[in-house]
Amino acid sequence: MDDKAGLAITFEEAKTSYQEGGIPIGAALVSCTGELLGRGHNMRVQLGSPIHHGETSALFNSGRLPASAYAGSTMYTTLSPCDMCTGACLLYGISRVVIGENRTFLGGEAYLRQRGVEVVVLDDVPCRELMERFIQESPELWNEDIGVEERVYSKEGTTRPT
Amino acid sequence: MDDKAGLAITFEEAKTSYQEGGIPIGAALVSCTGELLGRGHNMRVQLGSPIHHGETSALFNSGRLPASAYAGSTMYTTLSPCDMCTGACLLYGISRVVIGENRTFLGGEAYLRQRGVEVVVLDDVPCRELMERFIQESPELWNEDIGVEERVYSKEGTTRPT
Repeated sequence: MDDKAGLAITFEEAKTSYQEGGIPIGAALVSCTGELLGRGHNMRVQLGSPIHHGETSALFNSGRLPASAYAGSTMYTTLSPCDMCTGACLLYGISRVVIGENRTFLGGEAYLRQRGVEVVVLDDVPCRELMERFIQESPELWNEDIGVEERVYSKEGTTRPT
Repeated sequence: MDDKAGLAITFEEAKTSYQEGGIPIGAALVSCTGELLGRGHNMRVQLGSPIHHGETSALFNSGRLPASAYAGSTMYTTLSPCDMCTGACLLYGISRVVIGENRTFLGGEAYLRQRGVEVVVLDDVPCRELMERFIQESPELWNEDIGVEERVYSKEGTTRPT
């Protein structure tokens, strides 16, 4: 599976979540041989869960796997991964993280690279436009999902107030 | 709630998980006013979930909360938090992490401190003895939970092979 195909799955997941009234972030975990291990989307609204982000939902839906299954794998995600999802990728030794866009939110990309993970940002316009629409429509829900009291904009995107 | 009382809840959770045939790691999230927001334990075996560690289960069981609910909160955990749980604490701006023990596994304590989180290690003997028993009984399950192929011992505890 190439990166375009991987991202297409995550965008489908994001749109599904949006249509469910949820947060439109999707992800997919693909093995080193190109096999889709799991796909999912943010389930804060749907499950009332603060731990089911896009990437963690893809991991959840991948089920229990030995460490070897994650070796050489790629996590595709529509949005730059938050600290929790960054940590989840590190825990399981995921080798690559391919990100749809990081203009609406900048997560743990630098820390992933520092820990040896390859990070690719595709700067995908449909991913960004969907997040921009969602943030405009539901700012309180978005703030809740990233643990901030209010949106703070910077040129790097939404960041925690300092 | 003082740290001894907080740790007692997490140890009850860890024992419950052990009795269920699961991984004996428990956690509890306590607000700045001492209110128990949520408690939980690792659910890898019970739910077949790679994302329900002790700390993330406590967050899951706390449900959806605004960012203000996490301000000044303490995450109690029987064991040093892995990268995923470290990231979850950072995402939600948890102020303190109180750890039962870090001899059987050393997680993201340095990174938590670097990001401004207060970290307290209680070096609790019952927490350590329960983990040591579990690791001896079920090494494959433990390796799966921390994403490693085989146990590697160092004086700091179990670490990922380099």
